[in-house]
Amino acid sequence: MAVYTEVSDQELTTFLCDYDIGLAVSFKGIAEGVENSNYLLRTDRGTFILTLYEKRVEAEDLPYFLGLMDHLAGKGIACPIPIHGRDGKALRELCGRPSAIISFLKGMWPRRIEPYHCAMLGEAMAKMHLAGNSFVMKRENKLSVAGWRSLFESCRTRAHEIQNDLEEIMEDELAQLEESWPTDLPVGIIHADLFPDNVFFLGGTLSGLIDFYFACNDFLAYDLAICLNAWCFEEDGSFNVTKANRLLVEYSRVRPLEKSEVDILPLLARGSAMRFLLTRLYDQLHHPEGAMVNPKDPQEYLGKLRFHQQVKDVTAYGLDGTP
Amino acid sequence: MAVYTEVSDQELTTFLCDYDIGLAVSFKGIAEGVENSNYLLRTDRGTFILTLYEKRVEAEDLPYFLGLMDHLAGKGIACPIPIHGRDGKALRELCGRPSAIISFLKGMWPRRIEPYHCAMLGEAMAKMHLAGNSFVMKRENKLSVAGWRSLFESCRTRAHEIQNDLEEIMEDELAQLEESWPTDLPVGIIHADLFPDNVFFLGGTLSGLIDFYFACNDFLAYDLAICLNAWCFEEDGSFNVTKANRLLVEYSRVRPLEKSEVDILPLLARGSAMRFLLTRLYDQLHHPEGAMVNPKDPQEYLGKLRFHQQVKDVTAYGLDGTP
Repeated sequence: MAVYTEVSDQELTTFLCDYDIGLAVSFKGIAEGVENSNYLLRTDRGTFILTLYEKRVEAEDLPYFLGLMDHLAGKGIACPIPIHGRDGKALRELCGRPSAIISFLKGMWPRRIEPYHCAMLGEAMAKMHLAGNSFVMKRENKLSVAGWRSLFESCRTRAHEIQNDLEEIMEDELAQLEESWPTDLPVGIIHADLFPDNVFFLGGTLSGLIDFYFACNDFLAYDLAICLNAWCFEEDGSFNVTKANRLLVEYSRVRPLEKSEVDILPLLARGSAMRFLLTRLYDQLHHPEGAMVNPKDPQEYLGKLRFHQQVKDVTAYGLDGTP
Repeated sequence: MAVYTEVSDQELTTFLCDYDIGLAVSFKGIAEGVENSNYLLRTDRGTFILTLYEKRVEAEDLPYFLGLMDHLAGKGIACPIPIHGRDGKALRELCGRPSAIISFLKGMWPRRIEPYHCAMLGEAMAKMHLAGNSFVMKRENKLSVAGWRSLFESCRTRAHEIQNDLEEIMEDELAQLEESWPTDLPVGIIHADLFPDNVFFLGGTLSGLIDFYFACNDFLAYDLAICLNAWCFEEDGSFNVTKANRLLVEYSRVRPLEKSEVDILPLLARGSAMRFLLTRLYDQLHHPEGAMVNPKDPQEYLGKLRFHQQVKDVTAYGLDGTP
């Protein structure tokens, strides 16, 4: 919820000369997205999002993210389309930062999740996974199991500030995850951050997916595991099995899940809970004084981890185990 | 730079039923405005700003602010127009907060001020002052001389945290201002917060004035004094006499200044510097941990106060003293 880099009207005007999208008539910082500076840009020809990529996004990854959006849009997936400049380039520089203009996507993200949202999400995610098959660039998931240990080491000694026994809980879980993490599931392009604020709906229909800045190559079922955590828990921490069922069933209609994927879902869900617990813990402990973003609560994800730890099989997610 | 109140899509849909402006197709928090929660709302019929008034705006003042925008727009002043609901009311409630939808104004605020901006600002402000003449509601300026003492008392003991001798400087100045503040200047409706981010330009022309939430009845020349401070200093703290000249001359073309107003400008400018020094000092010292807004620098306004203290007459502002 911030704009980190202030773009002057002169800089904007100069920047837009490199594009064929008209002249700016309005330009407002958007209070969404914690990683980058986002502006809503209206020209006399249309509406766009201008993003300045801040430190947390690695510049070398940007061609992958922008290329993926181009690729998915070309396959009919509703997602923002990078706008290419007169020289053909979508990735440019503004105010000393890598920057891009992408198309504006109509719709609003759902603040209160209903089961039909999960159903539509499942369908859209499966279509995205299929469309990603033919994308040739690769990007490793730096926030999967191989990356968790170093994150944990960087904040384990202060984990007790959040909860007394948090260090021990995480240590045990991390060891188990490292030992039993799968190696032979179907892989492909995953979004890796499909939280509700990255999924737009309009008139009861899913209108698009946004924010591909965590996308990477990983197990396709891991994207589902992330969404089990992000979409299927209620505010009081309880798990809504109906939502999970709708998500998984509608996904499977488009891309049938293999038995190996279904069986491993509880472990992937634990891993996904660990990943967000770790990054939230890190952000909480390294929250700079006067920062413009309130860090998210790590304990929410500790609760989710605890839930999946006691899951015996996928009947807990509303499946009968024989997809 | 914040959105304090999160509006759900369901709450928005219900809220919009009371208006005849179509269905929402997009809804984004804007990272501008530190007092209220502002959303950019697009419907299938147009673009609007939805504002939820947070604690710092007193609810009883809202009919004045919204009525003033209605009045000024009716007189041809380019400013946001409150959208009235089906029952005729512009002021409603959303998420437990007073709320209103206003029309969207095209344009961008100038990040780098040029003299022509000041000239156009002067002309627009004078027209606004004339148009305000026939507005019948009244609102006292709570941040004029009568309100400064209590603000000062609430932070004087900690003023040294900003600068060693700040308490003494402010004490002396405040006493002088209280003693010599005028009582018989032309009065009317003033905007009272015409900083660059509240003035939009488009294609080299002033396209509108926004954010009337400090508007009040006070000396018209005090609005000019505020703008001398907000528009005519360079980033290095130096005063740009050309900008001041353009501001004052173009203002006078529309509403000729009386000699009493011109003569008192240096004192009004000191008062205006004191007002923003006080509120910035207060905000700095009372800045809550984890707040989403970075407080503005009080010392900027101490420097401006120091400048006006050594001004002998209005030749320092580019006028010859005989308007």
